[in-house]
Amino acid sequence: MSTKTAAIRIEGAERSGRFVIICEHASNAMPAPWGDLGLDAAQRAAHIAWDPGALGLAWGLAEVLHAPLAHACQSRLIYDLNRPPHHPGAMPERSEIHAIPGNAGLDAQARLARTEELYLPFHAELRALIARRLARGEVPILVTVHSFTPVYFGQRRSVELGVIHDRDPGLARAVLEEAQARTGLDARLNEPYSAADGVTHTLALQATPMGLPNVMLEVRNDLIADAAAQQAMAAQLAPVLSAARARIETTTGEAA
Amino acid sequence: MSTKTAAIRIEGAERSGRFVIICEHASNAMPAPWGDLGLDAAQRAAHIAWDPGALGLAWGLAEVLHAPLAHACQSRLIYDLNRPPHHPGAMPERSEIHAIPGNAGLDAQARLARTEELYLPFHAELRALIARRLARGEVPILVTVHSFTPVYFGQRRSVELGVIHDRDPGLARAVLEEAQARTGLDARLNEPYSAADGVTHTLALQATPMGLPNVMLEVRNDLIADAAAQQAMAAQLAPVLSAARARIETTTGEAA
Repeated sequence: MSTKTAAIRIEGAERSGRFVIICEHASNAMPAPWGDLGLDAAQRAAHIAWDPGALGLAWGLAEVLHAPLAHACQSRLIYDLNRPPHHPGAMPERSEIHAIPGNAGLDAQARLARTEELYLPFHAELRALIARRLARGEVPILVTVHSFTPVYFGQRRSVELGVIHDRDPGLARAVLEEAQARTGLDARLNEPYSAADGVTHTLALQATPMGLPNVMLEVRNDLIADAAAQQAMAAQLAPVLSAARARIETTTGEAA
Repeated sequence: MSTKTAAIRIEGAERSGRFVIICEHASNAMPAPWGDLGLDAAQRAAHIAWDPGALGLAWGLAEVLHAPLAHACQSRLIYDLNRPPHHPGAMPERSEIHAIPGNAGLDAQARLARTEELYLPFHAELRALIARRLARGEVPILVTVHSFTPVYFGQRRSVELGVIHDRDPGLARAVLEEAQARTGLDARLNEPYSAADGVTHTLALQATPMGLPNVMLEVRNDLIADAAAQQAMAAQLAPVLSAARARIETTTGEAA
């Protein structure tokens, strides 16, 4: 089963796995009525517009884990679904070194329209997906999948896998330890970002109030540059997530 | 402007005040298709079915504060909108000393139907109300309005006003101090319930992820037993809320 609106596509809603995979920065599409925001083709293809490779990785994880996948259908520069409507980054006037002409001086009506057309339906559909599982007695585990650029403001980053948590660090710590044990990746907790940078909004909105285990994965985008690399990374990380899940279930005595 | 569905009624969505008043337990209506859940008239009128007096108080507060009011349209025994779908209290089999026959052994499909028809639209409409204000550059302050019974499991309660917070205690502490300074009420922090009892779900869902100031008010229901008493209590508590708002805005340096 697949649900698609302008804001969100949900694939495999009927899949029976415990994980729910989420990719808020899946797309660099800039559809009407918003258009290209005054950016050139190189800017629209760059990491400021989306998280390159993240959707392919998320697809792979969802398939191996038999999990539903919820992903965005438009660029984060039109509305960054991982930010609330009053956050300057929701419809940013600048991203890294780039001015975003189509976001300059947006008035209240323009901000409201994007909020109503993108932010609200994305999070309402995602909440419904999660709530339906809760109503049936299942407790989903939320995983948001992101990528980051190897060079940021001119600095090279050596971290390869960032494992980030919202308020409850339990799953993230287990994922970090399993990633360090099972992969050769340079994996670190709360790098290159953390909740203090406002990057866990989706988790704060969808997982924390429900008490659901959750983690945000940030993969350096040069490691998932094509479909083969994305599949290979999914094959590495799916067992990490499964082992981390088993570990928190053992700790809490929760039934699998 | 008034919006009404089976799950929620929003009144005064266009009002320009900073507060948003919420009343999840406003009604003891038990409409079709759910019906009376096997309860007699006395049980349906009692505090197990709703928070008596809370809606009248919430109306009064909304009017004085020029705030929108969002309230439920059906009994908490059909779905308690202040609980997530997997919480035993969402569709409780017992409430205090009463068995709820129509909630005994609900299967997944019945729980799912109530979640989809009541919980999801209530919180989606409320989120939209809040997000529209955020998109316009306003930062609403959320107040949930509840009442509690003077006698619980045979014990008399002397507290008259409970002031309860979710994760951020800032506004609640200011409300408590203003209530103690401005009223003769026996006001206490996190009594007769607290977040640890799971009573702040609406605040955790709607306020905390957005960083919005929030407080839950619990008034002993013998103090708001009729319309005159509800209006009088609203006239007492509205200045308490306004003064508390001014206090946190001074503290944080936030603009009014």
